[in-house]
Parts: sequence; C-alpha cells; structure tokens
Amino acid sequence: MDRRKISSFIGLIPVLLVVFFAVCSSANAQYQPNWNSIDSRPLPAWYDQSKFGIFIHWGVFSVPSFSSEWFWEDWKGSNPHPDIVKFMEDNYRPDFTYADFAASFRAEFFDPNQWADILKASGAKYVVLTSKHHEGFTNWPSKYSWNWNSMDVGPKRNLVGDLAAAVRNRTDIHFGLYHSLYEWFNPLYLQDKANNFTTQEYCEKVLWPELMEIVNTFEPDVLWSDGDWEAPDTYWNSTEFLAWLYNSSPVKDKVVTNDRWGSGDMCKHGGVYTCGDRFSPGTLQKHKWENCMTIDKVSWGFRRNAPLADYLDMDDLIELLASTVSCNGNLLMNIGPTADGRIVPIFEERLRSMGDWLKVNGEAIFETRPWRAQNDTVTEGIWYTNKTTATYAIVLDWPADNQLVLSVPIPSSQTSLFMLGYNQPLKWSGIASKPGITVTMPQFTPDTLPCEWAWVIKMKMVQ
Amino acid sequence: MDRRKISSFIGLIPVLLVVFFAVCSSANAQYQPNWNSIDSRPLPAWYDQSKFGIFIHWGVFSVPSFSSEWFWEDWKGSNPHPDIVKFMEDNYRPDFTYADFAASFRAEFFDPNQWADILKASGAKYVVLTSKHHEGFTNWPSKYSWNWNSMDVGPKRNLVGDLAAAVRNRTDIHFGLYHSLYEWFNPLYLQDKANNFTTQEYCEKVLWPELMEIVNTFEPDVLWSDGDWEAPDTYWNSTEFLAWLYNSSPVKDKVVTNDRWGSGDMCKHGGVYTCGDRFSPGTLQKHKWENCMTIDKVSWGFRRNAPLADYLDMDDLIELLASTVSCNGNLLMNIGPTADGRIVPIFEERLRSMGDWLKVNGEAIFETRPWRAQNDTVTEGIWYTNKTTATYAIVLDWPADNQLVLSVPIPSSQTSLFMLGYNQPLKWSGIASKPGITVTMPQFTPDTLPCEWAWVIKMKMVQ
Amino acid sequence: MDRRKISSFIGLIPVLLVVFFAVCSSANAQYQPNWNSIDSRPLPAWYDQSKFGIFIHWGVFSVPSFSSEWFWEDWKGSNPHPDIVKFMEDNYRPDFTYADFAASFRAEFFDPNQWADILKASGAKYVVLTSKHHEGFTNWPSKYSWNWNSMDVGPKRNLVGDLAAAVRNRTDIHFGLYHSLYEWFNPLYLQDKANNFTTQEYCEKVLWPELMEIVNTFEPDVLWSDGDWEAPDTYWNSTEFLAWLYNSSPVKDKVVTNDRWGSGDMCKHGGVYTCGDRFSPGTLQKHKWENCMTIDKVSWGFRRNAPLADYLDMDDLIELLASTVSCNGNLLMNIGPTADGRIVPIFEERLRSMGDWLKVNGEAIFETRPWRAQNDTVTEGIWYTNKTTATYAIVLDWPADNQLVLSVPIPSSQTSLFMLGYNQPLKWSGIASKPGITVTMPQFTPDTLPCEWAWVIKMKMVQ
Amino acid sequence: MDRRKISSFIGLIPVLLVVFFAVCSSANAQYQPNWNSIDSRPLPAWYDQSKFGIFIHWGVFSVPSFSSEWFWEDWKGSNPHPDIVKFMEDNYRPDFTYADFAASFRAEFFDPNQWADILKASGAKYVVLTSKHHEGFTNWPSKYSWNWNSMDVGPKRNLVGDLAAAVRNRTDIHFGLYHSLYEWFNPLYLQDKANNFTTQEYCEKVLWPELMEIVNTFEPDVLWSDGDWEAPDTYWNSTEFLAWLYNSSPVKDKVVTNDRWGSGDMCKHGGVYTCGDRFSPGTLQKHKWENCMTIDKVSWGFRRNAPLADYLDMDDLIELLASTVSCNGNLLMNIGPTADGRIVPIFEERLRSMGDWLKVNGEAIFETRPWRAQNDTVTEGIWYTNKTTATYAIVLDWPADNQLVLSVPIPSSQTSLFMLGYNQPLKWSGIASKPGITVTMPQFTPDTLPCEWAWVIKMKMVQ
Repeated sequence: MDRRKISSFIGLIPVLLVVFFAVCSSANAQYQPNWNSIDSRPLPAWYDQSKFGIFIHWGVFSVPSFSSEWFWEDWKGSNPHPDIVKFMEDNYRPDFTYADFAASFRAEFFDPNQWADILKASGAKYVVLTSKHHEGFTNWPSKYSWNWNSMDVGPKRNLVGDLAAAVRNRTDIHFGLYHSLYEWFNPLYLQDKANNFTTQEYCEKVLWPELMEIVNTFEPDVLWSDGDWEAPDTYWNSTEFLAWLYNSSPVKDKVVTNDRWGSGDMCKHGGVYTCGDRFSPGTLQKHKWENCMTIDKVSWGFRRNAPLADYLDMDDLIELLASTVSCNGNLLMNIGPTADGRIVPIFEERLRSMGDWLKVNGEAIFETRPWRAQNDTVTEGIWYTNKTTATYAIVLDWPADNQLVLSVPIPSSQTSLFMLGYNQPLKWSGIASKPGITVTMPQFTPDTLPCEWAWVIKMKMVQ
Repeated sequence: MDRRKISSFIGLIPVLLVVFFAVCSSANAQYQPNWNSIDSRPLPAWYDQSKFGIFIHWGVFSVPSFSSEWFWEDWKGSNPHPDIVKFMEDNYRPDFTYADFAASFRAEFFDPNQWADILKASGAKYVVLTSKHHEGFTNWPSKYSWNWNSMDVGPKRNLVGDLAAAVRNRTDIHFGLYHSLYEWFNPLYLQDKANNFTTQEYCEKVLWPELMEIVNTFEPDVLWSDGDWEAPDTYWNSTEFLAWLYNSSPVKDKVVTNDRWGSGDMCKHGGVYTCGDRFSPGTLQKHKWENCMTIDKVSWGFRRNAPLADYLDMDDLIELLASTVSCNGNLLMNIGPTADGRIVPIFEERLRSMGDWLKVNGEAIFETRPWRAQNDTVTEGIWYTNKTTATYAIVLDWPADNQLVLSVPIPSSQTSLFMLGYNQPLKWSGIASKPGITVTMPQFTPDTLPCEWAWVIKMKMVQ
Repeated sequence: MDRRKISSFIGLIPVLLVVFFAVCSSANAQYQPNWNSIDSRPLPAWYDQSKFGIFIHWGVFSVPSFSSEWFWEDWKGSNPHPDIVKFMEDNYRPDFTYADFAASFRAEFFDPNQWADILKASGAKYVVLTSKHHEGFTNWPSKYSWNWNSMDVGPKRNLVGDLAAAVRNRTDIHFGLYHSLYEWFNPLYLQDKANNFTTQEYCEKVLWPELMEIVNTFEPDVLWSDGDWEAPDTYWNSTEFLAWLYNSSPVKDKVVTNDRWGSGDMCKHGGVYTCGDRFSPGTLQKHKWENCMTIDKVSWGFRRNAPLADYLDMDDLIELLASTVSCNGNLLMNIGPTADGRIVPIFEERLRSMGDWLKVNGEAIFETRPWRAQNDTVTEGIWYTNKTTATYAIVLDWPADNQLVLSVPIPSSQTSLFMLGYNQPLKWSGIASKPGITVTMPQFTPDTLPCEWAWVIKMKMVQ
Repeated sequence: MDRRKISSFIGLIPVLLVVFFAVCSSANAQYQPNWNSIDSRPLPAWYDQSKFGIFIHWGVFSVPSFSSEWFWEDWKGSNPHPDIVKFMEDNYRPDFTYADFAASFRAEFFDPNQWADILKASGAKYVVLTSKHHEGFTNWPSKYSWNWNSMDVGPKRNLVGDLAAAVRNRTDIHFGLYHSLYEWFNPLYLQDKANNFTTQEYCEKVLWPELMEIVNTFEPDVLWSDGDWEAPDTYWNSTEFLAWLYNSSPVKDKVVTNDRWGSGDMCKHGGVYTCGDRFSPGTLQKHKWENCMTIDKVSWGFRRNAPLADYLDMDDLIELLASTVSCNGNLLMNIGPTADGRIVPIFEERLRSMGDWLKVNGEAIFETRPWRAQNDTVTEGIWYTNKTTATYAIVLDWPADNQLVLSVPIPSSQTSLFMLGYNQPLKWSGIASKPGITVTMPQFTPDTLPCEWAWVIKMKMVQ
C-alpha cells in the first residue's frame, strides 16, 4: 500500500460525504443541495424588518490593531504592505510570529453586559460578531482549532458565548455570527488550494466540523459567511451545508445567511445579497441586500492610530442608513473593539447617537418597505421609505429657506404631513393628484429641534 | 569621624546653598527670596490674554491607564484602593513592580507634529505637559533620574523636547511644563520626610538640579508646580528658586508659575492661583487664577476603561470656559494620551470642537477682561466678558421664545448688538441708561446656525 | 438529517479506513495488521549492534523547565501538583495558559551542528528526539498542528529537520523520533476518550496524518512510540499503522519501533521492549529491550532548579550501561536541552565522559552479545559481554588488593587476558576447564590508568 | 545669579567635604587621608590565613548572559562588539534598552541558604559578591539608585542582605562586597568625566553616599573596589574614604580592601594588590596579593552559551590555587549565577570538587606562608607552602615511575615525609644538609587514592 493509494482513498471521503448529505437530504427534506432549491427559501421576516445591525470585528488582529484586520495577510502574504513590514521591524523582534500576538489578546476589560447595553442603545436590531476571521482564530473554544482559540490562549474566555448570552438577555435584538470559510495560512487549506481544490482535507478536518459546532452551540440568527472567493462552492460543499442548515439545524426557521458561499456566488445565490463590502447601489434592488460598512473608513478591525478624520460622522452614517433602507437594504455598521475588550468612546458616541436619532425617527426605518421612488428627483438628500399607513421622506439637509420641495409624492385632499418628533401638522402646498408637495418647515430654535441630523417628513394619504 | 558628623555636615549644605542663593540674589537682583518680593512680580501679559490652555498628563501611569495617574500611590501607598489591588492581582504576576511598567511605555505612535496640529486646532494658546509627575519618571533624559526617564527606558525618546519643538513650530501657542516637587516613593524624599523635613537631601540631589535642568533646557513659558503640600516652602527652597527664576533664568521675563510651592501657599503666594484642582469659583477673583480640569471627569491620566459618560461634553466644556474667563480665570483643559503615544479620537473630537467654537466666538474669550458683572442676574446661563471696544454675553441656552433678556447691560442710544458669526445687527429693546436689554434672536435653520453650542451677543456701546 | 446521523456517518470513516488498510495490506504484503504478523518481523540489525543512544526531550515544557516535562498535566490535570500550582501563582499572572509559554520557546542558541558534535562525542550510535510529546506541540511544522508547532510559534524553526540533517551529516549515528500517541488536552482526543474510545476523530484528524507526516518527511531510524496506555491498540489502529510502516513506508527496512502501541501491549508486542521507564531488570531478557533513563534522576525535560546531586554521575552511568548491555538491552540515556537551545555543560560533561570511556572500552559494548552469564556470582560489580573473538568483564570497582576474582569464566590453556587501553597481557591464575580466574591487576599511577571509571578485562579463549 | 555661579558654588561642595574629612580625620585618628598613612595599615590577619575565596558576579548582565558582564558597554559604548549588536538585532525589538532587561532579572530560584551551603562546601573562607557592577544597578535597595536596584525592579529583593545573612550563618567564612566606583553610563559620571574630573557631582550624589550605605548596612569583611581607572584617586576622594573606613567605620578593624582606588594606584596603593584581572605572577610577591580569576575562562557574569570547553577543569583550578598560595597570593575564584537565581551544576561541581580536595589537602593551603622557594627547580608542577611545623610540596603530576624528585628541600636526619590523606610515612632518600629528596610515592589503586587531582607531600624537619 503506497502513499498515493492512501491519499486517493482519503480523497474519496468528501465524495462519500457529499453523497451522504445528498441522500439524507433528499428523503423528506424541504431544501435540496442545489442553488435552485436553496435560493427558493423565503427570507425569515425578522431580518427585513430589522434594517439596522452592528457588525463587530474582533480577533488576534486587534492586538497589533494597525493597518486593518488583514494584518497577517498584508504582512506575510504574497503582497506585503511596506507600512506593516516597517511597523513590525520597528516594534518587534525579528522572529516574532503572528501567533505570538495571541497571548496579548487579553480582553481583560470585556464586559458583555456593558457591550450589550451600548449595542442595544444604538437602536440596532441585530448584532453580528466575528466568530472566526480569515486568521482562523476562533473566538469560541473550538475543538477543531486547539490552541488557536480564545479559551486556550489570550482571553481564556468563550467570547462568542459570553456576548451571545448578554445580547439575548436584551429584548428585540438578534445575535448572529460572522464566519470565514477560508483561513489564509491554514496549511490544510493551502494544500487543498495547491491541489486546485480537488482535495477537501481542510473542509473535512476544520471547516465542516466548525460550522456545525457554531450552529449547534450558539444557534445564531445570522450566519454571515465570508472568505469564499478563492474556491467554488463545490469545494466548500456550500449547498449541502445550507440544505442541512435550512432543513435540519436548530436554527432552520430563523437563520439568515448571505451570498458568500463560493466564487461567483456573490450577488447571485444564497440569502441576503452583500455584493461586496460597503455595497451601496443607491437604487432599488429587487433582492434583499445588506450594506456592510465601517465607521472607521479604513478598517474593520480596531486601528489604534486612526485619527478622528477617519471616522465617519453622524451625517455620513444617517445618509447611509437612509439610502440603504430606501433601496431595500439593511445597514450593517461595523465597530472594532480593542484587544483588551473595550468599545472605545468614539464608537460608543456614534452608536448612542444613532440610537438617539432612531428614538425619534425609527418609525421611518424599522418595518418599512421601499417606496415606489427611492430618492427625490428634484431635491437632493431626500430618501423615501414606506409603510401601509404612511410614506416617509428622510431629509438630510434642511432647506435653506425653510421651503422643502418633494417632487415625487402625489397629494390628495386628505393628505396630512408631520415631522417626526414634532406634534403639529405641517403646512404644505400642492395640487391633488399631481406630483409635487412644498412643505413649510417649522421654525425651531437649536434647543427645540427634534433631532440633530436628518429630519423625517411623515406623509399620510399620499401616493 | 562618625556617621552622625557626616550627616550633620551634609545637613549644612542646603543651609549654605540658601545663604548663597540669598547672597547672590540680594546683590543687584529685582526679586528677593521672600514672598513679599516674589508676589510683587507682575504676571507676564501673554498669560492673561491666552485664556485657554491644554494640559497633558503623560507618564508611566499611562501604561496601566487604569483608575488614574495616582495609580502607584493608590496601589502601594498608605491607603491602597481595592480596585487597583484587584486589577494587579488579576492581570500581573505577584512581584510585578510599578517600575516594571516603564518598559511598556513605548510611545511608538507618538507624532509630535500630529499632536501639535490637534492642540493648535483646539484654539488653545498654551500647552502644559507633565515633565515629571509624582511618580518621579522624567519625560526628558534627566541626569538626575537615571534609568527612570523616557530616554533610558520605554519610549527611548525625549518626549518633552520633541513636543516642545513641534508646538513652538506653530504660531501663537506657548509651551509650558508641569513639574511635581515631591516624588511619592523616592527614598531620598521619604527620608527627608521621616526627618520632618529638617534635611534636604532629596532637594539637593534631585529636585533643585532637575528644576534648573528643565528651565535651562526647555525654557518653558509656564512652570506649573505641583506636589508641594507635604512640606513647607522652606523645605523646597521655593522663594530662593523663584527669585532665581525671575531674576536670572533664561525665562525670567516670560515665565508664568502657579501657587503650588509649599503647604499653605496655595491661593496665597506665587504666580497664578489654582486654589486646588478643578477650582471654579463662579465669582470674580481679584487675583489671576486658573481652572485646571479634565475632560475625563475622573482622571488626568488616560483611563482605558472610561465609558463615554465619563467624558464631559461640549456643553459642559464651553460653560466651563465661559464662566472661568468671565471670573478672571484661564481654563486649562486636560487630556491624557495613551502609552503608545496617541491622543484618542474622543479627545481629538473635543479639542477640534473647542477650536470650531472658538473660531467663531474666540473674540469673546481671548484678550478679554472680566466685566463689571460676571453672569446675568435674571437669565441663567449668561456669562459676560469685556473688551475696550465691546462687551460680550455668552449665551449657553437659546431662549425658548427667541427673546433673550440681558438684565445687566445698560444700553444707550448708540448701542448696537450683533451675534458672532452672523453679520447683521440684532433687534433689541431697552431704555437708555437703564439696565436691561431684550434681544430678539435671529431665526436660523440648523444649517445656518453660527455654531453648535453657545452663542455670543456682542454689545457695542453698552455700560 | 439530524446531527446524530452525521456523527454516526463520520463514525464510519475509521472503519472504512481500517478495512482499506487491511485490504491494501493483505494483497501482496509481508506483514498483516495483527500482532502475530507484526511481532514476527526481525529487528533491523543495526539496533542491537548500537547498544547506546541519546534521548532528547525538548518542547514547550522546556520553557518553565520546572518539575518535569509533565508540567502541563501536573498543573492542569486531574491531580495538580501543589509545587507547580505555587510556581505559577508566584511567577505568572492568573490567566496565563500553558500555550502562552510557547512564545518563550525561542531556541535562539540552537546550533544543530554543535549538538551533533556533542552527541557524536558521547559515543552513542543513535539519537531519539521528541518530535511531539504529550503536550501535542510538534517540533516540526506539522500541517495537523497549526499554530501549535515550532515553526508557527516560538523557535520559528523546523527543529526536527534541522537536527536530523546535522546528525545524519555525521557517520555511524542513527536518527530516530519519539512520538506521543495521545495528547493530554487535545479536545478531539478528550472527546474520543469520553466516548470510551468508540470514536476515532482524534486519530483521523491528527494522529494518523501526523504519523505519516513524520515517517514520510524525516524517515526516522527509530519510531519511539509513547502515550499509548489510555486506549487499546484497536483505537490507535496500531497494527494497521505498523503493517504499513513495515511493508510500504520509506523506512520499512531500517526502522525500529518499541512496544508502546496500546494498553497492555508494553513488554508484549511491537519492536524493542521498554517495559516501562528506567526498566533495568538486571537479568538476561530474551527479547531485545531498551533501558531508557535520564541523567537528571527526576525529569526528562530540562529542570532549571535541579541541583548537582540530582544528576547521575559517571559511576552510575557506566554501571547502567554495562548491566544493560550484559542483559541484552540498549541504553537510551536522556538529556533535556533548554528552551533557548542549549545542552548545558553538566550534560555535555557527562556525554563527553561517556565518549571518553567508550573510546577505550567500546569494544566491550558495541556489537557484543550477552554472554552465558551476565554478572559475576562471587565478585560484585562485574558485568560480562561477549563476542565471537572474546569475552569481556566490565569491572566497576577496582579490587582492593589488585586481585580480581572472576568466578564464572572457564579458562583453558590458550586463555589470554588483557585490559582494554593497556597493551600487555595480564597475569592471571586458574585451572583449565574449571570456572574461576584470578587476575592480577596491573599497577598504574593516576596518570597511566586507561580510564577513570570502570575497567574492562578482555578474555580470549575462555568459556 | 547666573548658572555658572551656581555650578561653581556646587563645585565647592566636594572641596568642603574633603576639608571636612581631612579635619575630622586628623584630630585623633590613626590614619590620615594620604597614601603613606593609608598604606601603613597592617592587613587584618584573617585574610592571609584564608587563601581561597569565591567571587560572585551577578547583575542585570545576567539577563542577556551573553558575551560577558561588560554587555552594556560592549553594546552601547565607544567600541560596540559586532556579536552583541547582532544578538540584540536578532532577538529584541529595535528600541530595547539595557534598562529594559532589568524586569527579567527575577531571581525566582534564589535560595541564599542553598548558595551558602555550596559556597561553604567549596572550602572557601570568604565570599565576595558584586554589590554593584559598572552598570550601576545595586543589588541592595540603595536610596541613591532609585528604580535601578534589585528591590525596585526585577528580583524585588535585597540580594546583598539575603546572601550576607545566609553566609554569616555558616562558621569560618567571611562575607565581602565588590563595588564599582564608576558607572559606564551614569550621566552624572559622564558629565564629571567630560569636565576632566574637575567636578565631582557623581561622587557627591551617588558614589560617596552609596559607599557609606553599603559599609554601614552590610559591614563587609572585604570591600573589593573596581572601576577606578578612568580617574585619579583625588576625584574619587579615595584616601579620605579609606581614612574614614579604617578609622571610624563599623568595619575598621576587620575590613580588607584592594588596590583599585584610582588610575595609577593598582599594584601600588591600598590593601591587597590585585594588579589586574587574573594576575598570576608565578613568583613570590612581597606585598600580599590576590589572583581573581574565573572558572568560565571568558566571562565573570554567567554566559548561557559557554560550552564545556570554556570552563577550567579541576587540574587547572588546583594548579592556580597552588601556585597562587605559594607565591603569597589568595585565589578568588569567580562564578556567575543565572538571572533566575541559580548556581548552575557545572559551577556547583567545580566548587564541591574544590571542597573535596581541600578536605584532604587544606592543611597545605590554609594558614600557610610562602616558603623560601615557590616551585621546584627540577621537577615541574611542584609548588611549595610552609608552616612552622612542616613544609608542603603540592604535586600536580604524579611521577611516571613513582619516584618524585624534590630538588629544593634540604633533609636532615629527623626528616619525615607523609602524603596528606595517607597515614603512613613515605620512603625517601637524600643526603642530610644537601638539597634534594627523592620520594617513593605509595602504590594506590584507583579507589585508594587520597584525592583525584594533586597530591601533597608533607615534610617535617626539612629546610
């Protein structure tokens, strides 16, 4: 028996597994392991109603907290970034490895309840935490990532489990998990890749067991897949996995996934479409989508040396929320905690300010549906959303002369207009059944303004 | 010759020094080493004109960055704080010493020009950096603090010199130094203290040489003394030192000092009165004073775990600036940089916001003098300042009905009123020569407001 | 498809593998996967001729280098040793993990050529290095132990490969590898164990791939198995593995294994019998055996705080070598290098002294066979070995009156006696064909003694 | 009063001190602060009787334990050693400072009683520990070296005090202290040096207080001065200090000093002459001298990477002891403990072996005086010592034919010869009153030899 025979036998295992998945699935199951079937699953309703979530990138990359969460790849990968190389040369001994960072991921200030309070205060309806980023370090004590997880080194803590419990202890907020399919430097993955993905040793030994481990252990509401692009979904066995997830897993009814399940799948298959990072089309998308973006313009992981100018301000953030929701997307806004377990005050300020704005204006966001128009064709900075009871115009810029022109809505004789956070009906002019309403904005002093940033005109009985 | 003889001889040295200082000073010098003479020195004009400075607390305490800059004393002093004791037990090996922290004070992100840009953008006219706090660690390579300074351990850098150069490379901003007279755990100091301050070995070997070293090397515009309270000024030889500083030192004409030169001296002797930390009397003080306070309500040094709620907001800060300047004080607003050399974004945001406000309203702050009244007797939240050309009312709260009542100013027929940042004269009513003006505030939309927080009414020709 | 189905399917894989191994093996192979067949393999000749090897225990345990190489188990296992618990409490922060030690395993002084020179100078004919101890840390860059191997953390070096190359660059010395079947804290192993070894996930994902990796990569002359005792060989698939090793592996002709392949196998099955650590029966063993023992009496891994009294001296070591070889064993003498990569001088001194002794007396050790008697029945401290050309009496204690009584050999008229390292024939008396020879030892001054410790009487033509 | 005036005044202080020392000393004191007087002091008797001491070099240099205890100077001084520069580049981050090493000087295994047992077992009659080497780090909690001493950083322990107590708890062994006058990088010293030693700020602030501190606190039997060579003794105020030490200090009657008190003083002034490191003249020296040397041929501080070949063996060490004592010297044999507080086994073995030899042969060493001849003129490797009751020939090499020729002693009819450790009189031949004795060495077996290395012929009634 020579070596080639053994490896060719081992090569059979995934085939057997696929067959087995298929066989098991086909029996009495709702979803089959093919995209036609998988894609036919309706999106669980809670997700579209939620509109706004917080993304959290936390991992060993939070220790250097320099450049970005791609630190390892950008340092040791095929295209090293000179600033990272220099950072390491300046601050560490020559043989320092990325794994050596893990001992300094201490999370000593991590208070899951404090985090959950801040997350809840942001008004977000769901949270997505990196269970494992491309570095492969698992933020839970995975059996399949021994000594490269948050219990065995560094925090000595089940970060995923602790945050899940705290978030779920609050009402009206869902808990989800980000998970990277590939691991940049996992030697098993690299070997499969070198074999042009004709072998699946990495999948068998690490990926599939881990995916089942997080689904079964943490029962996430969102499974935010990533790191799929180097290999086809047939390598990842994505449709088989999703069939199991949708048919038999403990989260089969509630779980929401995305579109990152293999090269070529993005924007085509799976659950919610992400279509790339910071996707923000500005026009209505038929398929439910998500704009995942970062408050720190540059990085998903915490960057110690990010100056204030690199943080999006509230005007930016609310514009993104308004335009995203208008166009049928959800906004997934990212923060990067520190290696010692803190959400720094600048992030806390942005999150709480979002919450302040949503407390007044959330009616125009949550549980809305896209309207027949997304933004106004005449006045810039107007984004529309809709409910059965009213249509909303989110006004980013206050009109210079207090006269706001909304060119799209068609008023009727029963039309009435309000500003969210302001009790009285607004004066407006327009011609019934003809598009176009001019609203006279109320006079406010700085202290009586309903909110600081964007203002919402609620329109009843318009078309 | 026995030991007692030697120490009694050594005990003579400071006496000789005092005599010598006195003799040298008395010859042709302006100031004598006594408080009458020292206190008679006029305050250099630049200081009162400046009104607003930034205080920076940076040191080895920035490494734990927990609890406060009193970490060492509160850990190992006579009254240990249980939270610090627990923090150390939880996170460090048993024999870890405070000095062991120093190697982690790396300042690897410290960019003096970036700091100077931010400090300048705050609108402040002076900066005061801790050259040495009570821990005794000198932020410059002191000859008298070998291996306990920022060049020999940790940053490996002349922090004081580097920031001084960067700040001085900007126009219209002064550079000063904080300096602690005592050092909690310096064994020479502790011995003098045990001797009821009848010996001055610490002063001879450390304090006086160091004071001369920073004055001669960095020529600070402010010498912000602290840590004086355990001993009388006769132990510190304060009047002798100040006589030298005012008569002969390279900064004799420009230097500003404070009132922390010995127990009982505060609020009585020296230069500017500080009268305690966060002194904010709310009434006019005849003697020039300074309100030194912290944006982080709790600590002068950086605190990693300070939540957003512990940071004063812009309303708080502008109220403090207005009330302080109205009452003849300067505001010295503190930030705490991190051990790796950053001014974190929340501090940067506060500093830049102060600068934004001052760009519009600085005319009511800089180079003003207290007016005959400090705050309004009828309307709350009004602080007055004055110049020869105008009187200013700083309005913290916008009047609910846009009608602002200023009860103190006495209008005349030539009186005219303006709002800073708004070009047109304001409508007002009142009776000539009778106190009381009612100002009609202009109508602004959120986008046309001159500034976000407090607004200034500039009054010409009022009494 | 529920979870139990998947795991039961996965549970099938090893069965399939076993079948496959069996099928492949049965075809045209020499050895079958059962003990009868495996045990029938003759021992490669080089091993019995070699007699003396050096064992090297090196790993993450070399970082604390306290207590023993069982540090982790004795700290965190079911029966914590109080001295280790105290050591950790006294010297490390509370949450320090065993994995955190790995970054300090630096091997910065490791010079494989220097080691190989010392090993060669000891006179040993083979070297056995821990490729992986029970801690699971691999001293080579294993694909199956990502971030828990000497390339990814700590040394950043292929320790096994580097030493193998250096040793093989010397003549007449073999290179072997120690390998632990179990890993104390590997969660996959612990799960199999919790399942009473009815599952083999650990074996599939870690053990078998790793074993094949080291055999194929390093082609070891010795595969020194250990850590087998908690599970039967049917769990480890030992006979299947050995069949492959003996039939098809690249080392099939030369490799020597031992008897640690499953609970109950020791001293019964496999290759060389070890029968426990420091096995030293003192009587002839029919089956080839090995006495693996340590120069540091207490530990296999380096112990920083071992006093001189804990090191065996040369008298002890030579007695062990002599008695072991006399009784058909090989001596495998252990040293523990330091975490920074040194063989400390006390070990170097013992190794070089062994070499000095063997240079003179190796003729009585290497390539000998046990004689009809092992030790003398009258005179204590005499051990016999044999060759076709001569019989050797190794004399541990010089006879007090220079008259050495050897009661076992039967002289003849042609008998001649020599002392190794001394050129002239010795005087002796005895009666032909009757057991018993009295040798008159030569007179030496301290400077003319052939060697320092034990002396060998070479007897030609005795029975 | 300008700066120059102050510094010139400060410059006066040492002059005053000198005067004061002189005045105090001259009154009723035995010794005057000049070399004539100082040099006239008789050496305390215990020292010459002791013959053999152990030197211990321990400090921050024990942390890198690379190259030598001159690590800092050889790294950062005027002539950097490339191997040290490379060592630092390979193993530490770029800005690592020498002071950063101090935190790793932990001494966690330091057991003063264990050390004292080993030191006592060596047979040595005194121990000299580095209280402070040229690095300036004090191994006691000096008030004059704050945060650069063994209590404030690293060991967190009074190393000097702890060892002193343990040594003094044994009988018949003295405790002394090594002390470096200069400190390579002390900025106060460097400034005095830059001033061509016309200023003495370092002496006033550091040196003199420290010297008095160790003398008064630890009352050392030996004050082993070093680091004197860059400046004349007038800079160090050596004669003033010694006058105080000999007249008034608590150790005035017992203390022994050496000759390192200023450039040009070595081998000329002070107490015992050292005349350089490893001074070993091989001929009789009239003035009592000391051969301070190292078991590690290369370094005084521990060197991790010293191979066995770099350690002197017992033949070397006993030859040095014999020749040194014969020529009127004491041997001060150095060991370097590790940063974690151990005397490594190779040193322990050498020390215990010395003790073994001295147990048998100490009679020929302790309390002897040089004889009229030092070594034999005919037979190499013979060193003579003398007592009133006998003369001793220390024989390094056993005579090839057991006939030892001693060409110098003149026998008489009453002459009798013995070997130490052997009870019976030796056979000898020679002619009364004529130089020359031929001794017949006894026949020993390896087990009956009195000792392993050198043998002593005790001669009664010879001239």
